[in-house]
Amino acid sequence: MSTDLPVPETRVLAIASHVVYGYVGNTMAVFVMQSLGCEVAALNTVQFSNHKAYKQVKGTIASGEEIRDIYEGLKQSYLTDFDIMLSGYAPSAEAVGAIGSIGRDLKLKGINKSGSFFWVLDPVMGDQGRLYVNEDVVPAYKNLLHDTDLILPNQFEAELLSEQKIICLDSLAEAVTVLHKRYRIPHIVVTSVRLEESSGTISVVGSTIRTDSTPRLFKIDVPAIDCFFSGTGDMFAALTVVRLREAVAAAKLGSTRSWISPDDVEATDLPLARATEKVLASMQVVLEKTKTARDEALERMSGPLGTLERERDSEKRLHLRKTKAAEVRVVRNVADLKEPKVVFRAEAFDGKESDDARPNAEDIERDDGCSEKEEVNDDHKEESK
Amino acid sequence: MSTDLPVPETRVLAIASHVVYGYVGNTMAVFVMQSLGCEVAALNTVQFSNHKAYKQVKGTIASGEEIRDIYEGLKQSYLTDFDIMLSGYAPSAEAVGAIGSIGRDLKLKGINKSGSFFWVLDPVMGDQGRLYVNEDVVPAYKNLLHDTDLILPNQFEAELLSEQKIICLDSLAEAVTVLHKRYRIPHIVVTSVRLEESSGTISVVGSTIRTDSTPRLFKIDVPAIDCFFSGTGDMFAALTVVRLREAVAAAKLGSTRSWISPDDVEATDLPLARATEKVLASMQVVLEKTKTARDEALERMSGPLGTLERERDSEKRLHLRKTKAAEVRVVRNVADLKEPKVVFRAEAFDGKESDDARPNAEDIERDDGCSEKEEVNDDHKEESK
Repeated sequence: MSTDLPVPETRVLAIASHVVYGYVGNTMAVFVMQSLGCEVAALNTVQFSNHKAYKQVKGTIASGEEIRDIYEGLKQSYLTDFDIMLSGYAPSAEAVGAIGSIGRDLKLKGINKSGSFFWVLDPVMGDQGRLYVNEDVVPAYKNLLHDTDLILPNQFEAELLSEQKIICLDSLAEAVTVLHKRYRIPHIVVTSVRLEESSGTISVVGSTIRTDSTPRLFKIDVPAIDCFFSGTGDMFAALTVVRLREAVAAAKLGSTRSWISPDDVEATDLPLARATEKVLASMQVVLEKTKTARDEALERMSGPLGTLERERDSEKRLHLRKTKAAEVRVVRNVADLKEPKVVFRAEAFDGKESDDARPNAEDIERDDGCSEKEEVNDDHKEESK
Repeated sequence: MSTDLPVPETRVLAIASHVVYGYVGNTMAVFVMQSLGCEVAALNTVQFSNHKAYKQVKGTIASGEEIRDIYEGLKQSYLTDFDIMLSGYAPSAEAVGAIGSIGRDLKLKGINKSGSFFWVLDPVMGDQGRLYVNEDVVPAYKNLLHDTDLILPNQFEAELLSEQKIICLDSLAEAVTVLHKRYRIPHIVVTSVRLEESSGTISVVGSTIRTDSTPRLFKIDVPAIDCFFSGTGDMFAALTVVRLREAVAAAKLGSTRSWISPDDVEATDLPLARATEKVLASMQVVLEKTKTARDEALERMSGPLGTLERERDSEKRLHLRKTKAAEVRVVRNVADLKEPKVVFRAEAFDGKESDDARPNAEDIERDDGCSEKEEVNDDHKEESK
């Protein structure tokens, strides 16, 4: 057995999309978890040629019944001894329901052994104010929330689930509080929040619930990278599975219900905070390397593009090339996944604007105490729909 | 970029089965190639809950049209710049035809650049004298052979394709000769040949064609491991993709048509021989570790099995447990894939029985000069159908 792996043998059921080319959904998450030593069972909800950032795609979609049927196949052969389930993109409300019944079945199986099963849910619904699933998927996800252990919404998805508009740290904290209280979700991470468009910083905000359902909020800021990536949400989720399990083991919480730290553990000392720091450390390096490789690739093709520009479909073809060049370089950078060097630390916050996060004086202060922001930009979101 | 990887960035299109639990088909091959640094596009021909050794399975099958359609999806976005295609299990003759048209299309694209595209075909049809695909799959594979660069049949499949009964090294050499001559296949490896049931040895026999279509035969003997594994054929194929590319680069043959060595290169000096030595070195260690882990797992479950034995379906359940325990431990043994220590060397042979391979005196000598053998046993064959 390798000794350089962060976790002991961990069995993960990963339910998400599969793309033939590129790295999103399970195609990203499975390799990331495997390369860190997890035994991953990948149940693919779709098989697409590529992810949607290419703006054209071919492939097939699994029905809710097909998803349930495959799980029945696992059950009949006693192959469901999973420690963790990571669920991502589902192509329909029916598929979300099927994933929910799988999650509940696994949870039920482990009910007499606290901490033996942990469900990480990425409620993939949309981004930047736009739904890219049917409207009935939103209530379908709400129906699952009270059975999950950790959810990983982006800013827009956190708004949809909490029914709380997020325009500042204050309202973000409120959304997390609502999700803890209303659904008793043990752990929440809102991925890649961007409240200050101009600041060049992306924030990740997380919290682990206290006994009284109040949050323990932490925030980690990382520099924004000027490049559109796909599949980074899936990369985030996969790394979180491994790093959270590692941090929970270090804190000896593995046999505690939903791996919840005692109330006296501060936000910045949470295993979730420790894990997220490592996740972001790996991601930042791999994404920077990807950006460099992309820039080199675009540089190399500057000759042919001159020709392309005279072609009728040059704009489309240029977009396809750029999208391809920005595929995350994960396979050849496993060392960065394995040995994260933590630079960006979690800091506690109570949801009130700090001096750093306070908007410029010229920004309009609104009635709710939040500064007006035009939009949020989520570069870190799964792109496989 | 990692410097401990054996090959430069290599883009592989892998077309084979996908199982949710366990390691066969693409579920085995993709991780193996990725962990050695390949960018792998996995086109899954089926999605099954598990492999067939469990004797029960649920899931879905892709039609030939669905396979073609996904490839069209790749083409329309210019995502077909593959260096290598590895094709394995196809669920129908129609699917074999679809894979063939993909292989030909990629070959055509690279026709003006020798060595720029290489097709490795594992003609999955059956094992130990038994077909587990429809009969029309056999001629469908024959139709592809003249476009492939390397084929990896097991003993039974080599018989089906060459129409030459294989019962000794002599007839095995004849089958390989026929495949070279009739279909002009550049490279052939017959995986896990077992001519001496009692000897405890498994042989792998390979050859690279000469200009006059004669073979250059080498043989590598490895100790048989007393355990039934699934997916080892896929592991063999995936490792071969990487190690052959590595050996071909070392021999500076990467720009030569089908990576064929000059006629004066002896069998044991072929890149194919070098590659196969490394492949078997990795496999032997990982399979031995798997056997040890399986034995420990079976030991641990000896208690519960006592209870099981009194249950009505105890035999079935015991089989399921044994099959699960024998899943190849590939994810946590990447170091053995990366750093093979070659112990078993390729030796040249002309197809005539050597003293070592000669049967016991009491074996009946047949008219064709071969010793009678009751059956061949192929433990190393893909099991995903």
